[in-house]
Amino acid sequence: MSQKTIYVLNGPNLNLLGMREPEIYGRDTLADIESRCVALLEGTDFGLVFRQSNHEGQLVDWIQEARTEADALILNPAAYTHTSVALYDALKALSIPIIECHLSNPHARETFRHHSYVSLAANGVIAGFGAIGYELAIRAILSQVK
Amino acid sequence: MSQKTIYVLNGPNLNLLGMREPEIYGRDTLADIESRCVALLEGTDFGLVFRQSNHEGQLVDWIQEARTEADALILNPAAYTHTSVALYDALKALSIPIIECHLSNPHARETFRHHSYVSLAANGVIAGFGAIGYELAIRAILSQVK
Amino acid sequence: MSQKTIYVLNGPNLNLLGMREPEIYGRDTLADIESRCVALLEGTDFGLVFRQSNHEGQLVDWIQEARTEADALILNPAAYTHTSVALYDALKALSIPIIECHLSNPHARETFRHHSYVSLAANGVIAGFGAIGYELAIRAILSQVK
Amino acid sequence: MSQKTIYVLNGPNLNLLGMREPEIYGRDTLADIESRCVALLEGTDFGLVFRQSNHEGQLVDWIQEARTEADALILNPAAYTHTSVALYDALKALSIPIIECHLSNPHARETFRHHSYVSLAANGVIAGFGAIGYELAIRAILSQVK
Amino acid sequence: MSQKTIYVLNGPNLNLLGMREPEIYGRDTLADIESRCVALLEGTDFGLVFRQSNHEGQLVDWIQEARTEADALILNPAAYTHTSVALYDALKALSIPIIECHLSNPHARETFRHHSYVSLAANGVIAGFGAIGYELAIRAILSQVK
Amino acid sequence: MSQKTIYVLNGPNLNLLGMREPEIYGRDTLADIESRCVALLEGTDFGLVFRQSNHEGQLVDWIQEARTEADALILNPAAYTHTSVALYDALKALSIPIIECHLSNPHARETFRHHSYVSLAANGVIAGFGAIGYELAIRAILSQVK
Amino acid sequence: MSQKTIYVLNGPNLNLLGMREPEIYGRDTLADIESRCVALLEGTDFGLVFRQSNHEGQLVDWIQEARTEADALILNPAAYTHTSVALYDALKALSIPIIECHLSNPHARETFRHHSYVSLAANGVIAGFGAIGYELAIRAILSQVK
Amino acid sequence: MSQKTIYVLNGPNLNLLGMREPEIYGRDTLADIESRCVALLEGTDFGLVFRQSNHEGQLVDWIQEARTEADALILNPAAYTHTSVALYDALKALSIPIIECHLSNPHARETFRHHSYVSLAANGVIAGFGAIGYELAIRAILSQVK
Amino acid sequence: MSQKTIYVLNGPNLNLLGMREPEIYGRDTLADIESRCVALLEGTDFGLVFRQSNHEGQLVDWIQEARTEADALILNPAAYTHTSVALYDALKALSIPIIECHLSNPHARETFRHHSYVSLAANGVIAGFGAIGYELAIRAILSQVK
Amino acid sequence: MSQKTIYVLNGPNLNLLGMREPEIYGRDTLADIESRCVALLEGTDFGLVFRQSNHEGQLVDWIQEARTEADALILNPAAYTHTSVALYDALKALSIPIIECHLSNPHARETFRHHSYVSLAANGVIAGFGAIGYELAIRAILSQVK
Amino acid sequence: MSQKTIYVLNGPNLNLLGMREPEIYGRDTLADIESRCVALLEGTDFGLVFRQSNHEGQLVDWIQEARTEADALILNPAAYTHTSVALYDALKALSIPIIECHLSNPHARETFRHHSYVSLAANGVIAGFGAIGYELAIRAILSQVK
Amino acid sequence: MSQKTIYVLNGPNLNLLGMREPEIYGRDTLADIESRCVALLEGTDFGLVFRQSNHEGQLVDWIQEARTEADALILNPAAYTHTSVALYDALKALSIPIIECHLSNPHARETFRHHSYVSLAANGVIAGFGAIGYELAIRAILSQVK
Repeated sequence: MSQKTIYVLNGPNLNLLGMREPEIYGRDTLADIESRCVALLEGTDFGLVFRQSNHEGQLVDWIQEARTEADALILNPAAYTHTSVALYDALKALSIPIIECHLSNPHARETFRHHSYVSLAANGVIAGFGAIGYELAIRAILSQVK
Repeated sequence: MSQKTIYVLNGPNLNLLGMREPEIYGRDTLADIESRCVALLEGTDFGLVFRQSNHEGQLVDWIQEARTEADALILNPAAYTHTSVALYDALKALSIPIIECHLSNPHARETFRHHSYVSLAANGVIAGFGAIGYELAIRAILSQVK
Repeated sequence: MSQKTIYVLNGPNLNLLGMREPEIYGRDTLADIESRCVALLEGTDFGLVFRQSNHEGQLVDWIQEARTEADALILNPAAYTHTSVALYDALKALSIPIIECHLSNPHARETFRHHSYVSLAANGVIAGFGAIGYELAIRAILSQVK
Repeated sequence: MSQKTIYVLNGPNLNLLGMREPEIYGRDTLADIESRCVALLEGTDFGLVFRQSNHEGQLVDWIQEARTEADALILNPAAYTHTSVALYDALKALSIPIIECHLSNPHARETFRHHSYVSLAANGVIAGFGAIGYELAIRAILSQVK
Repeated sequence: MSQKTIYVLNGPNLNLLGMREPEIYGRDTLADIESRCVALLEGTDFGLVFRQSNHEGQLVDWIQEARTEADALILNPAAYTHTSVALYDALKALSIPIIECHLSNPHARETFRHHSYVSLAANGVIAGFGAIGYELAIRAILSQVK
Repeated sequence: MSQKTIYVLNGPNLNLLGMREPEIYGRDTLADIESRCVALLEGTDFGLVFRQSNHEGQLVDWIQEARTEADALILNPAAYTHTSVALYDALKALSIPIIECHLSNPHARETFRHHSYVSLAANGVIAGFGAIGYELAIRAILSQVK
Repeated sequence: MSQKTIYVLNGPNLNLLGMREPEIYGRDTLADIESRCVALLEGTDFGLVFRQSNHEGQLVDWIQEARTEADALILNPAAYTHTSVALYDALKALSIPIIECHLSNPHARETFRHHSYVSLAANGVIAGFGAIGYELAIRAILSQVK
Repeated sequence: MSQKTIYVLNGPNLNLLGMREPEIYGRDTLADIESRCVALLEGTDFGLVFRQSNHEGQLVDWIQEARTEADALILNPAAYTHTSVALYDALKALSIPIIECHLSNPHARETFRHHSYVSLAANGVIAGFGAIGYELAIRAILSQVK
Repeated sequence: MSQKTIYVLNGPNLNLLGMREPEIYGRDTLADIESRCVALLEGTDFGLVFRQSNHEGQLVDWIQEARTEADALILNPAAYTHTSVALYDALKALSIPIIECHLSNPHARETFRHHSYVSLAANGVIAGFGAIGYELAIRAILSQVK
Repeated sequence: MSQKTIYVLNGPNLNLLGMREPEIYGRDTLADIESRCVALLEGTDFGLVFRQSNHEGQLVDWIQEARTEADALILNPAAYTHTSVALYDALKALSIPIIECHLSNPHARETFRHHSYVSLAANGVIAGFGAIGYELAIRAILSQVK
Repeated sequence: MSQKTIYVLNGPNLNLLGMREPEIYGRDTLADIESRCVALLEGTDFGLVFRQSNHEGQLVDWIQEARTEADALILNPAAYTHTSVALYDALKALSIPIIECHLSNPHARETFRHHSYVSLAANGVIAGFGAIGYELAIRAILSQVK
Repeated sequence: MSQKTIYVLNGPNLNLLGMREPEIYGRDTLADIESRCVALLEGTDFGLVFRQSNHEGQLVDWIQEARTEADALILNPAAYTHTSVALYDALKALSIPIIECHLSNPHARETFRHHSYVSLAANGVIAGFGAIGYELAIRAILSQVK
């Protein structure tokens, strides 16, 4: 029986996952990742809300929704990581655990990917593990709850 | 009878006003602020359009609408203050008075809040007065009209 | 008979074209430009999809659509040129020719317009020719195809 | 009967107001502004101390005096806004409300006017409204008192 | 009958075109490009002056000559794009249309190629189209004349 | 039976863990963390080498040792994260998976902690989870091996 | 008969001239320089007002005085050259010729002497000629008047 | 009998000592500090001149006076530490020992307090010891004289 | 009878003087300026060598020639002021007086004109006086010789 | 009888004291300084631990040791002042008084010596007094204890 | 019998070698250096082409010539090291070994000499050995050939 | 018979030479290089001390040892080139010739390798020649001795 909820929110272009630059992002699709997360939560009392949007404003709306609907947030902000003060402000209004998750390691890529507004508000950061990173994020939430 | 219109547009996360970080932004909600503005305009020939959005594009749409529908604009761009060239370009197309309004004083906060694209196009700036700032902005418009 | 498609996508505030700052952007409207492009493609096997949005996320959606629906992309990203990593990431997923097109010459304007995320992914750049720039972009595509 | 006092302190070159660059600063003289402020306080229990100096040290002296003599401070630091750590240190010693007031909008002018040491200590900032700005500042003080 | 003249001036190392780094600059030689330009002008009343030099001073001399001898200028300043204030000063003395043309897209290359002194004076910029860029530049001139 | 080896190397001041700034780093000691890691590897074919040093050179020596002795490396470089090109050069010589692990989230702390030389060579980064981060790192290794 | 007036204003530490660092500033005293200037004006219809102050505010006062009392201003702002926005603002209010004069050449000294706020408002600059510089400045004024 | 003189000069806002931000500057007043210094010099052949001013120009005047009247200078430049080239130029004209003294440690405070023009001319710097720092400065002078 | 020689060397685009941007550079031609200089030297024992080139290398050649042929050098380096280390190195080899002369005041123009390599080697700088600047430079040389 | 302990730790190259660049660091050896410190502590209840190392890691080890063994720390970090985040992290774990001591004044030397990681954690800084600086540091500790 | 050729190209002001700043560049003339190089190549199958020019364009011409005429290039670009993208572009077209040679060590001189465009294309760099550096460069070529 | 000594000191990770990134550093091991150097010194009166360490402090110790034991120093500081002020301070204490030697050319690699503290103290620099660079360094020492 699901009594708690984890929000997993994905930012721009992640809907192309598995098609775009597989040498950087891997061959898993976002649906594959969602399946893995669901499998991992089986038998726990956590349910999953898993979404993607290319719109910065939509992501802000969902983060605000997570304030009252979620018990933990996993956010892969993708390109908005580096440019969105709006995401940062939205995250500061949450009192639940926030995990920033990146498929690749932004600090090993172009300079403009080295700064993260989201990191300023995140409790933890996981980067560079591809699809496995989402699983680690869920495990981290489970560990901290127990 | 209302013959003129003031647009008051509010940017991302301002819908959380009164809930988010009250030590910075105060305890008034956006609805409280709207009520005060309406009260202040009572008996004048100004009407009020008061809106909020988390979407940069939506704010651009509304600013463009204000070109033909409004006689003055009060804009609290929130996080987009610091990152949105699009808002700046939209504002440059207006020929009505533009007042930039912030609840807190961005120049006393993080460095990335010290730059404002909106200031480049605004006629006046009011910051740090919480909800009262909106009232000051309306008084400024009334003063300049008389 | 039209067998191939050119996407022409226009960013924020370009819907005001012909009204906003004509000394910088000229007096042609976006509809005028679309007409010229259509005229230029008459008799070729290229069709045209011509759109505008003030929303960064909408532009990302359309660029993703162009991955499978278009044979070439002409993008005037306007203000998002300088601030959108999301557009850049979307463009990197395309394997069709990409032309960045600006009505004015950004490098002769404010400093914050000198950097372009879009240029990092564009095959060619055309700037400063006003409405004629779109025609040059289309000619470039036609030249490269022949 | 006046029981409380508002200090209004004006920095360098403001004594030339009305003569110097009227397209930026307007045609009101400093005496005109003082008169308006006096008129606005009529019937309240606030008195006004209104001064101007070209000397940074004199302004520091007066701000220190305001620590014990004033109930609120309106400061137009003019050029010293951008260069005076001494003003900032003096302001930090005050426990009364501090409003930073500028006739023009410094953020729409030269780059070296974009940084304000005074903003780091001010409760509120009002900029770009010309002489009306002082009236707004006084209204803000009256609002906060009530 | 040729009554008007287009100057096409080419900067350092462009005489190696077709031999140097073909993956960046393509396989056409400068003579090939000149031929195409001549072909394109056939039947118009424009003649062509097409030159190359490795010497910054020589290019300044020719640009000055174009003041009185040319009706339009196409300039590929190559390496001097980024370092020559002298070219910029020379261009500012012209009252004819100036088109800056680059074979590759400098903004997708090393950081030191992102700044262009020439862009500060150019009416239009065409970059990244290889040899076709010259043809587009000539078409742009023809379009603007008609 | 243990056939494979994971090196866990810890940088300067981590021997004080549990005593130093517990509000940032938590109350677990390094020995506690080692115990957890050992427990987690029980029943797998991985053994653990777990070390700490305050000496940059010692860490370089151990990383070099890991080239031939280890199958995966978890490195918490602590203060050397931000200043050591030597660590980076040592890491580049490895062909095994490298995970950079931080107890706190460096990007939410002082500016000089925002740059990481180690990230340039790491396959994955885990930060901000306190002692749990080491467990996540080990799980990531196990996941990738299976 | 003297009908016109040249103000020569000298900034901080210039009263030590001839004593302080003679290898940089020469051995002439300020009185020596004043004598030379007087001698040079003999027989012309120009009189001289020659002053020095260590106080930024005093210099601002005198520059303001020059607005109505002087026909030309020679200003050696010394250390305030590099730090005083107040001097710059004062100078902008003048409509008489302004010559910035330095005994040494600031651009051949420490980096912090390379920027001059005063240059932004000065008509001409003379630097590096020691006491002779003042004479050149006076000659320049005489030349422009004739 | 006093034959030698130590000048102790104090910059802006130090007259508020003991009242302003005691958690940073301590609870001693400037008079307390002067008393301690006098006590320490009892029985030596050094006399004390102890002054404070909020005026940069006044401090420059006094430093110039110290050239001929003092045998050593202790200067707490406070806010002018970071902004005054004039103080630096004045100090360079002295040939007596100069000690820069700060109550707090500027390098552990805001970034704009990390640069000191005065340090460029000071023989020694003492910072962070509160009132005791003045005593250490006097001891240093006594040590160097003996 | 001419026994000594002054070299006056002029950099790129100065041959256009009187035609190019007269609102910045004035209406005198370079020939006019040469005539004035000749007139000024009449009756002295100084002769004049007056030249212009658009070529950096040519200017270096002439400066080297001045080492043995000239007794003083007046150099208007124009655009090369800001970009030429070669001119600087050439000037350092001279032991005669060097005066840097600019028609306009570079420090009141674009940022890239604020740095001068030539100033690092010049004895004196004269800027902003138009054609009169050359006369002042010659007077300075005559003054220093006497 | 010694009941309390002062640690004096010296960083790289200080073992060469008295031999290396005596015009900057003076002619006293480190042993001379130790002797003076011992003499100064005679008759007090403070003992001295006085060490030097060229190894950053060794200094970190000793600072950690001082956590439990010392009552005050005097640290001359020499070159590691400017580059060692590890020293800073180690110092933050101490709750005893920390005095940063430099023989010369780093702020009057090369730019890279102007930043100190150690200052961020030090209670007081003494610089530029040569060997006397250590004595001042000990006196400061004695003063604060009484 | 000479079958292979080494080009040695020297940049601006090197023709003054032996005369200019001997404390930096030594007392050998360029002719002396050429003689030494010739002597060193005696008995090998390498011939020498040894040239100098003050003209950036001339150096570009010669580097292009070296593409087909030389088997190795030794380039002392002098002042153009730091400013010439044109030299860099020319060098990139070569497929022979390129050695950058400097008489002094640019990295121990002014900051603007710390960047080298030429280093980006050079195989090896030799700096600070005076005339001997050319001999080392030739030995390096001979070593690599054998 | 060996009467003089050359120290060759090698920094971090150079013990991996021949194994690590051979496309950058070549396939010679450090032992191969030592052998070549020994061979080159055969028959001269120079002996060789050849060492490597990953420890910055150890390198400082050895450089100090070289002060009294060596007649020349060849230093390949590897990663510490860019980060070690301690090495720089140690080198400044030497009065023997110092040659900085790099296998690859740091200026053609990542930006953080473009600055060298060691270059500030080195007499000569040799970079980019692989193992041959050490031989050139030894030849340079032999040349300067003769």
